[in-house]
Amino acid sequence: MEIEHTPETCTKSLMAVRDTLDVLNGKWKLPIIIALDSGPKRFNELERMITGITPKLLSKELRDLEANEFITRTVYPTTPVKIEYALTGYSGTLSRVIAEMRDWGIQHRKKITGR
Amino acid sequence: MEIEHTPETCTKSLMAVRDTLDVLNGKWKLPIIIALDSGPKRFNELERMITGITPKLLSKELRDLEANEFITRTVYPTTPVKIEYALTGYSGTLSRVIAEMRDWGIQHRKKITGR
Repeated sequence: MEIEHTPETCTKSLMAVRDTLDVLNGKWKLPIIIALDSGPKRFNELERMITGITPKLLSKELRDLEANEFITRTVYPTTPVKIEYALTGYSGTLSRVIAEMRDWGIQHRKKITGR
Repeated sequence: MEIEHTPETCTKSLMAVRDTLDVLNGKWKLPIIIALDSGPKRFNELERMITGITPKLLSKELRDLEANEFITRTVYPTTPVKIEYALTGYSGTLSRVIAEMRDWGIQHRKKITGR
C-alpha cells in the first residue's frame, strides 16, 4: 500500500480512516448520496430507489446527512407542501471515495461469484 | 461525480458500494488492516496499536477478516506458541479505497476543527 510507516503517519492514517468511517457509518448513507447524485429527490422517490430501507431509517439517515452538511432539505410552499432533498457541494468531496468503493465492490463480486 | 446515470449503472453502483460497505462493515476492520500493513503482528501488538478496541472485539474482527481472506493466522510451534496475523495479497486490493478514505478523513478533520 501507499501508506508511510513512521509511527506518526501510521496513527494519523488510522485516525483519518476512522473519521471517514464514523461519518459514513452504517450501510445507508452512501447509497442515499449516490441516489441523490442524479438530482434532487423527494422522500418517496428515495424510498423506492434504495432497496431494503424502511421509512423510519431513511428519515433518520436524511437527518444525519443534513446535520453533516452533505444534503439540504428544501420545503416548497405548494399545496400539498413539496419537500426535496439535494446534495451540497461538500458531498462532492466524497466522489473519489465512492468511486473507489464502487470499483472495489464490482471486482469483489466477480471474485466471489466467479468461484 | 464520475458515476453514469442510466438506471442500470445506477443500480450497479449502489449494489457495488453496498457490497464494499458490507465487507468493511463496522469501525475496526480497516484500522486492523492498516495496522497489519507495516508487517505481521501478534494479538497483543494489535491490541496496543488500535486504540479503543477490546480483546473480544479484536478476536471477532480477526476471525471475520480471516474468513474473508484478507488476513492469515499462522501458528508457530514454539514454546509458548507464537501466533501471527498477516495481510494476504487480496487485502492489497483495498489500498486505493483506504488511501481515498484517509485523504478524505484528513480534509474533513481540517474542515471541522478549522471552524
